[in-house]
Amino acid sequence: MSTAWKSRYALRTKDLKSSTIRELLKITQKPEIISFAGGLPAPDVFPLDRFQEACRRVLELNGHQALQYGATEGYEPLREMIARHIARYGIKAKADNVLITCGSQQALDLIGKLFINAGDRVLVEAPTYLGALQAFDVYGAEYVSVHTDHDGLRTDLLEERLRSGPKFMYVLPNFQNPGGTTLSEGRRHQLVLLADKYGIPIIEDDPYGQLRYEGEHLPPLVVIDRENLRRDEGYSIGNVIYLSTFSKTLAPGLRLGWIVAPPDVIAKLVQLKQGADLHTSTFTQVVAYEVAKDNFLDEHVKLIRKVYRERRDVMLESLKKYFPPEVTWTHPQGGLFLWVTLPEGMDCNKLFQTALNENVAFVPGDCFYARNGFDNEGCRHMRLNFSYGQPEQIREGIRRLSVAIKMQLRSPHVNH
Amino acid sequence: MSTAWKSRYALRTKDLKSSTIRELLKITQKPEIISFAGGLPAPDVFPLDRFQEACRRVLELNGHQALQYGATEGYEPLREMIARHIARYGIKAKADNVLITCGSQQALDLIGKLFINAGDRVLVEAPTYLGALQAFDVYGAEYVSVHTDHDGLRTDLLEERLRSGPKFMYVLPNFQNPGGTTLSEGRRHQLVLLADKYGIPIIEDDPYGQLRYEGEHLPPLVVIDRENLRRDEGYSIGNVIYLSTFSKTLAPGLRLGWIVAPPDVIAKLVQLKQGADLHTSTFTQVVAYEVAKDNFLDEHVKLIRKVYRERRDVMLESLKKYFPPEVTWTHPQGGLFLWVTLPEGMDCNKLFQTALNENVAFVPGDCFYARNGFDNEGCRHMRLNFSYGQPEQIREGIRRLSVAIKMQLRSPHVNH
Repeated sequence: MSTAWKSRYALRTKDLKSSTIRELLKITQKPEIISFAGGLPAPDVFPLDRFQEACRRVLELNGHQALQYGATEGYEPLREMIARHIARYGIKAKADNVLITCGSQQALDLIGKLFINAGDRVLVEAPTYLGALQAFDVYGAEYVSVHTDHDGLRTDLLEERLRSGPKFMYVLPNFQNPGGTTLSEGRRHQLVLLADKYGIPIIEDDPYGQLRYEGEHLPPLVVIDRENLRRDEGYSIGNVIYLSTFSKTLAPGLRLGWIVAPPDVIAKLVQLKQGADLHTSTFTQVVAYEVAKDNFLDEHVKLIRKVYRERRDVMLESLKKYFPPEVTWTHPQGGLFLWVTLPEGMDCNKLFQTALNENVAFVPGDCFYARNGFDNEGCRHMRLNFSYGQPEQIREGIRRLSVAIKMQLRSPHVNH
Repeated sequence: MSTAWKSRYALRTKDLKSSTIRELLKITQKPEIISFAGGLPAPDVFPLDRFQEACRRVLELNGHQALQYGATEGYEPLREMIARHIARYGIKAKADNVLITCGSQQALDLIGKLFINAGDRVLVEAPTYLGALQAFDVYGAEYVSVHTDHDGLRTDLLEERLRSGPKFMYVLPNFQNPGGTTLSEGRRHQLVLLADKYGIPIIEDDPYGQLRYEGEHLPPLVVIDRENLRRDEGYSIGNVIYLSTFSKTLAPGLRLGWIVAPPDVIAKLVQLKQGADLHTSTFTQVVAYEVAKDNFLDEHVKLIRKVYRERRDVMLESLKKYFPPEVTWTHPQGGLFLWVTLPEGMDCNKLFQTALNENVAFVPGDCFYARNGFDNEGCRHMRLNFSYGQPEQIREGIRRLSVAIKMQLRSPHVNH
């Protein structure tokens, strides 16, 4: 039927991941299943009343602009607000350094488009964010993976990998997805110094930075880079491009993220974004601005932290209570995820089936490893989300999961 | 400063058009300028009250879903509505054939990503939609251009060009941007037959199809293709992928377009869209559904037709009244644009400067030609938009433009 099309697909689409998670999420949407698989914010924290009021005001006072075409760069007051907002974390950016994107995912796609020639290597953490791999894969990226531990990326392994000349590094320093780990301050400095030494720039992806439940805020790489290496150059950003999003603080359904970069990089990204979708929805941008303004976002984030911290604690307690002693997990200081390590010989993909029979779901760890990036290690891990479920669901889900794990542990196929 | 980045740009970004229109539009935003340059819908026809009511209801009844992550394919009720809607034009599609995109521009980007290898040829009209060239350029497209006349694409020139083996054809049959021309019914049949004969599929871009101000609706290529060549195969779509959008009927600030394609093409596009931006804003999709439902969209389109027809007529009358007899223009049966042809030897880019001095703006025609696609011819043309300005502004703007043209005609550099 559609042979005319099939024979015409571009080479870049040949090796696309078949998107395991996507298929998983479909299965796990059955109501009887408690799913730790998604990365969904809790809908009960969406500030619906504030959105009501914002929509009403926007349409009443600014409807003609909010529904019209807009600038590719984004809605100016929103860009300014973001610049002010990140300034509190030491990121000295102006609105000109900010490009609004359709979620962080589009930021990753535009970065792939701007930098990756087929065959270029990208240095990533092992494990790393699946969506980044999907975005970069289509441009023909190859990967150099570096292990992580409880303090994040192992910078002691970094120098050797940098010598292989990756195009850039892609790093999630805060409450990493999927690991839940945070890059320690010492390693942040090492990473920035090594990046400078080898002239390899950094993409710093920080979707969860504001969602810290314990410990002190650590300086972003973009700030360390500027302060330690480029003191005199004001607001410009040097070796680090910084990404973030409203998806985890306001609402993911808006699809609003942003890129902070030097003006010449922004100019190039704007050209690419124009060809990709002209611009991000004016309506969602104007509404998001109206919702977030007058410090509402800051107050709202406090509520989210409270809710998610409680859920994280419930998950940690339940893991301790139910899981067998051979199983370990990370202790995330923030974010949405934690990372479970099973005894050697166990296979999370098999466990996934057993778990489904117990009506509980997670994401098998191997999704989060780059091709040739220690893929086999992934089988011993799983990612658990703690932001979406109610506390009692989290308890019950972990109990069910422990049943599945114990069944699997007793199975004769596990060699331990 | 950002040398680390500059030296790392991918090859595909080297020859990006510097986006003349974008720069033009910035100049032409001064309040004293009457601009025919943009392609903006009239904001005074945005149904603000209906949007108010829709936002209120969505947030009250469906807020948790509307602000949450959604399926990459799009919001199911919206996809179903689109399938029902296009069925009236004979396009037998189901929701499964519909992918929601961030405006038609993202549809073009995804199609470029799916089909174009660097060096592949795409057959386009001369002139054609600038945004398509921008979307395809980045994937390394080369172009085969075919002239148009008052009946649209010259199918008598097509066969020879098809022998050069383009990957696909990109065609705007209705009220073409920038030409304002409509492909005649006879040529539609010829085009579909030739596409079938040479096995070259068609991308049919139809953003303006509903905005017809005179004459009879003509069957879309996708319908002719199915009815004439593939009678027995039900709703599946064969050799034609069909694109459209809510930008010209509801509001462009929503950034909502769609692709209608065979299921296997949709599946591939979904994979690419997932890597590109996960999905289009759930919020704008749910709101658009709520606005459009219960036949509101149909009624609203009647209003738009009335308003735009009047503006088109005012522009046509003004052109007749003010423009010198050496100048000709197309008579669009619908859409947003008409296309002016100046006497040989005149250069629209020079005219643009003269016109700016007279406080009136347009888009010089050469923007709309593919590289090596009769670029020089473009200099004799300009695109005028008639949807945005009020009738009295249109009259005054055409008068100013006629002054600029007459000055240019009298200039000694024009050789005629």
